[in-house]
Amino acid sequence: MLSINLQIKLNKLRSNKAFELFVISIIIFSALVIGAKTYDIPPGAMWLVSFLDWFITFIFLTEIIIRFLGEEKKKEFFKQGWNIFDTLIVITSLIPIEDSELAIVGRLIRIFRVLRMVSIIPELKMLLNSLLIALPQLAYIVALMFIIFYIYAAIGSTFFATINPVLWGDIAISMLTLFRVMTFEDWTDIQYETMEVYPLSWIYYITFIFFTAFAFLNMVIGVVVNVLNEEHEKVINSNKAPEPTNTELQQEIRELKHLLSKRLTNKNHES
Amino acid sequence: MLSINLQIKLNKLRSNKAFELFVISIIIFSALVIGAKTYDIPPGAMWLVSFLDWFITFIFLTEIIIRFLGEEKKKEFFKQGWNIFDTLIVITSLIPIEDSELAIVGRLIRIFRVLRMVSIIPELKMLLNSLLIALPQLAYIVALMFIIFYIYAAIGSTFFATINPVLWGDIAISMLTLFRVMTFEDWTDIQYETMEVYPLSWIYYITFIFFTAFAFLNMVIGVVVNVLNEEHEKVINSNKAPEPTNTELQQEIRELKHLLSKRLTNKNHES
Amino acid sequence: MLSINLQIKLNKLRSNKAFELFVISIIIFSALVIGAKTYDIPPGAMWLVSFLDWFITFIFLTEIIIRFLGEEKKKEFFKQGWNIFDTLIVITSLIPIEDSELAIVGRLIRIFRVLRMVSIIPELKMLLNSLLIALPQLAYIVALMFIIFYIYAAIGSTFFATINPVLWGDIAISMLTLFRVMTFEDWTDIQYETMEVYPLSWIYYITFIFFTAFAFLNMVIGVVVNVLNEEHEKVINSNKAPEPTNTELQQEIRELKHLLSKRLTNKNHES
Amino acid sequence: MLSINLQIKLNKLRSNKAFELFVISIIIFSALVIGAKTYDIPPGAMWLVSFLDWFITFIFLTEIIIRFLGEEKKKEFFKQGWNIFDTLIVITSLIPIEDSELAIVGRLIRIFRVLRMVSIIPELKMLLNSLLIALPQLAYIVALMFIIFYIYAAIGSTFFATINPVLWGDIAISMLTLFRVMTFEDWTDIQYETMEVYPLSWIYYITFIFFTAFAFLNMVIGVVVNVLNEEHEKVINSNKAPEPTNTELQQEIRELKHLLSKRLTNKNHES
Repeated sequence: MLSINLQIKLNKLRSNKAFELFVISIIIFSALVIGAKTYDIPPGAMWLVSFLDWFITFIFLTEIIIRFLGEEKKKEFFKQGWNIFDTLIVITSLIPIEDSELAIVGRLIRIFRVLRMVSIIPELKMLLNSLLIALPQLAYIVALMFIIFYIYAAIGSTFFATINPVLWGDIAISMLTLFRVMTFEDWTDIQYETMEVYPLSWIYYITFIFFTAFAFLNMVIGVVVNVLNEEHEKVINSNKAPEPTNTELQQEIRELKHLLSKRLTNKNHES
Repeated sequence: MLSINLQIKLNKLRSNKAFELFVISIIIFSALVIGAKTYDIPPGAMWLVSFLDWFITFIFLTEIIIRFLGEEKKKEFFKQGWNIFDTLIVITSLIPIEDSELAIVGRLIRIFRVLRMVSIIPELKMLLNSLLIALPQLAYIVALMFIIFYIYAAIGSTFFATINPVLWGDIAISMLTLFRVMTFEDWTDIQYETMEVYPLSWIYYITFIFFTAFAFLNMVIGVVVNVLNEEHEKVINSNKAPEPTNTELQQEIRELKHLLSKRLTNKNHES
Repeated sequence: MLSINLQIKLNKLRSNKAFELFVISIIIFSALVIGAKTYDIPPGAMWLVSFLDWFITFIFLTEIIIRFLGEEKKKEFFKQGWNIFDTLIVITSLIPIEDSELAIVGRLIRIFRVLRMVSIIPELKMLLNSLLIALPQLAYIVALMFIIFYIYAAIGSTFFATINPVLWGDIAISMLTLFRVMTFEDWTDIQYETMEVYPLSWIYYITFIFFTAFAFLNMVIGVVVNVLNEEHEKVINSNKAPEPTNTELQQEIRELKHLLSKRLTNKNHES
Repeated sequence: MLSINLQIKLNKLRSNKAFELFVISIIIFSALVIGAKTYDIPPGAMWLVSFLDWFITFIFLTEIIIRFLGEEKKKEFFKQGWNIFDTLIVITSLIPIEDSELAIVGRLIRIFRVLRMVSIIPELKMLLNSLLIALPQLAYIVALMFIIFYIYAAIGSTFFATINPVLWGDIAISMLTLFRVMTFEDWTDIQYETMEVYPLSWIYYITFIFFTAFAFLNMVIGVVVNVLNEEHEKVINSNKAPEPTNTELQQEIRELKHLLSKRLTNKNHES
C-alpha cells in the first residue's frame, strides 16, 4: 500500500533537524496556549484558543503519522514506551468531549502534551530514563521507609486519635501527618498538642525524624555510590583494547627470564 | 525426643520459597488488620478482627516452632538477634491482656509484628544491619553535637527562662526547643521574642545554626567517605590473586638485567 | 598621545599590591556608606554622605582610567567582561540623577559597586567564574524541572483556581505557589484547603515533592561528579611527561623478547 | 624548687587512664550540676549545689596544677590552645562574683566548663581541630556569600523599609531577615507583603534563594572534594617505600634492551 520510496522519504523527514525544531516550537506553542487558558480570556478570544487547540492536535497527529509511516519495521514502533505515550496523547486529544465531567480529563490530556518535549529532545529523554533506571535500585530503601512510616502511623493513630482526629484519625491520615512531620512543616504544633496528654511523646517525633533522616541519607549515598560506580565502569569500558594488567606484564617478564636462563644453560653445556 | 528425620524435613520447609512467601503474606495481612483497627469498625466486625488477630498469632507461633525445630544446633538459634526479637514478639502476643492499661502494650506488640517483615526478607535485614553498623562510626560526632546542644541549652535556660518558661524553663525543655530551632521550625518567632529583651540574642541562634549545620555536614561527609572506602576495599578484596605491584615488577626486571650482565661478563672472560 | 613611558608606569601601578589594597579598602568604605544610608541619618550628616559618594565615584573613575591607560593593547581591555562591568558601574554613577524615579536606579548602581570587590580580588573572581561555568552543565536538569513545574502549575490552576484564586489564579501564580511548596513553607495549609474539595489532592502535592526532590538530588550528584572528574583530569594534566601505560610497557618487553629469541635462533643456526 | 622525681610521677599520673576517667566523670558531674541549676531547686538544696560548684572548681584547679607540674618544659604548656583555655576557665571560676551583673558571667564560665570534655577526650579534640582546619578553606565562599547578603540587604532596605520597618528597617535587620528567608522560615509571608507594593518583588526572593542555595552547594562540594583529596594523600603517604612509577619501569626495560642490543652488536662484530 505504501511505496518504500515514500517510507524512505518520511524517514529522512523525521530525522531532519528543521522538522524536529518545528515540532519543538509547536509543543512550546501548545504549552503557551495551555498557560493562556488559565487566565481570564475575553469570550471573543475563546474561539481562537479553541481553534489553536485543534490546530495543534492536527499537527501532532500528522507528525505521529509521519513518524509511524517513516518507521521501517512497523512492529518496532510500538515497542518504544515514548511512541506509545505520544500516540495515546494524540488519539485521546481527538475524542470530542464536551461533557463537564470529561472536559476536565480533556484538559489534563492537553496539559500532558507538554511532556512530549521530553520525548522529542534526546537529552531530556536520556535524563528521564536515567532517573527511572535509578528508581528500582532504591526500592528496598523505599520499602524500609514505608515500614517505618506504617509502624509510626499505627502507633500514632492508636495513641493520638482521641487527641486530634483530624491529624491522627486513622492510619492513612496519620501517614500524611508523618510526611508533614518529615518535611518539618509546623511539626512542633503537632508535638506540643500530644505532649499535653503524653508528656514523653517528643520521643516519638524525634526518633521518627532521626530514622527518616538517616534512611534518606542512606538513599542519597546509595545513589551517589551508584553514579560513581557507573562513571568508573564507563571509563573502563571506553578503553577499547583493555590495558594489560601488572600480572600479565609479570608473566611476560618471566618468559623473558626463562628464555635467558635457557640460553645460559645451553652455553654452559656447550663450554 | 525429635527424630533427626523430622528436623531435616522442617529445615527444608523453612528454606522453602513458598513457605517464606506464605509468611510474608501473613505479615502483610497482619499489617492490614492493624491498619483496619485504626478505622471505626462496626461492633459486628469487632469479633472478626479479634479472631484474625489470634489466627495470625497462631500462625506466627507455628512458624517460630518450625524454624526452631528445623535448626540443627538449638543453641545457635538464640544467638541471632532477629530470632530473639521474633520469639519475644510472638510470646508476648500470647499473653491474654484485657486490662485497659496493658491493652495498649498488647496493641503496641501487635504493631511491632510488622517489623518481622525485616527479619524475613534478607535484603531488608542486610540494609538495616548496615545502617546499624554505620551508627557507632558516628558516635563521636553525635557526642560533639550533644555537647553543643547541652551548652546552648544551659545558656538558653539561664538567660531566657524568665522570658518564656514554656520554651526555656529548664535544660531538658531548652534542648527540645533547640532541636526545633535546628529544624528551622518557626525559629524566628522564638528569636524575635528573646531579642526584645536581649537585642543581641540573634548571635545565639545564628551561631547555634552554624555549629549544628557544620557538624551535620561533617557527619554526612564522614558517612560518604566511609561508604566509598568500603566500596574501594570490596573491589580490592574481590581480586582473589592480588596484582603484583610495580615494585615487584621492578624486582623481576632487575633480576633479568643481572642475568644478562652476568652473561656479558662471562662472554668477555671467554673471549 | 600617551607616551609608552607613562603607560608602563601605570601598568606597574595597577599591579602594585598597595594600590590594590587601597582600591579594596575604598570598595569596603563605599559598602559601609551604602549601609549607613539605610539608617536614619541626621540632616546635617546628609551632605557628608553625599560628599563621600562623589568622592568614591571620583576615586573609582581615576582607578578605571589608570587601569585603561596601563593596558598595553587598548582593544583587549574591553574584551574582559569584568572590565566592561566596572566601567559601566562607574560611568552610570557619574550621571547626575535627582528625579525621584531615577534616584532609585542611582542608588541601585551605587549598591552594585560592592560587586567590584569580586572583580578586584582574583580568588573571588575565579570562584564566581567557576560557578558560572557549572551553570550550563545543569541546563537540561533545569529544563526538566521547569517542565515539571509547568505541568503541575497547569493542573493546579485548572483544578484549584476556584478554591483559592490568590494561590492558584493563573499559571504564573501557581508556579510561585509550587516553588513555595518545594521549600516546604506552610505547604500543608495549601494542601488541607484543596483536600476539602478534592480529598485525593494530597497525591498532587506528594508526587510533586518527590519529583522535585529527586530532580534536585540528581542536580547535586551531577555537580559532584563533574567536580570530581575535573579534579581527576587536573591531576592527569599536571603530569608534564605523561606516564607510559601498561600497554606501552608490554610493547617494550615484547621487543626485548623478540631480540632475545632472534639471538637464540642465530645461535642455533651457527651451531 | 620541684624535684624532677615528683615531676616524673605527676607526668605518669596525668597519662594514667584511671586519672583521665576520674576527670571525665567530674566534668560530666559538673554538667549535671549545671543542668540541675536550671530547675527550681528547694532553698535547702541551694547550699548543696553551691558547695558542689566549689568542690568541682577545686578538683579542676588541682588537675590543672598536676598537668602543669607534670609538663617537662613549662614553656610548652602554654603553647597549646587547649591548655590556655582550660587554665582560663579554672582561674575565672575562682574569682568570687556575687554582683548580679557579673553573676551571669560566672554562670556562663561554669557552663563552658562542659567544653573541657573536648580538651580531655583526644578523639573529640581531633574532631574539633579538623572542623577548625576546614574553616579557612571555606573563607572565600563565606566572603562571597557575605557580599551576596550585603547587596540584597542594601536593595531590600532601600525598597522595602517603608513597607515593613521591623523586617527591612536598616541593613543589619535586613541581613537577619534574609538569613530567615534562607532558612525558608515563613519567607512567603514576607514576600506576599512586599508583592502588594512591588508585584515583581518575587524575583528578588527567588534569585536570592537560588544564589545562596548554589553557593551553599558549592561549599558542601568543596568540603567533600577536600576530604577525599586528604584521604587520597593519606593513602599515598602511608606507603613508606614509594612504588616505582611506570616511567621508572620503562627506564629499566630500556636499559635491558640496550644491554642486549650491545651484545648482539658484539656478536656480529665477532662473527
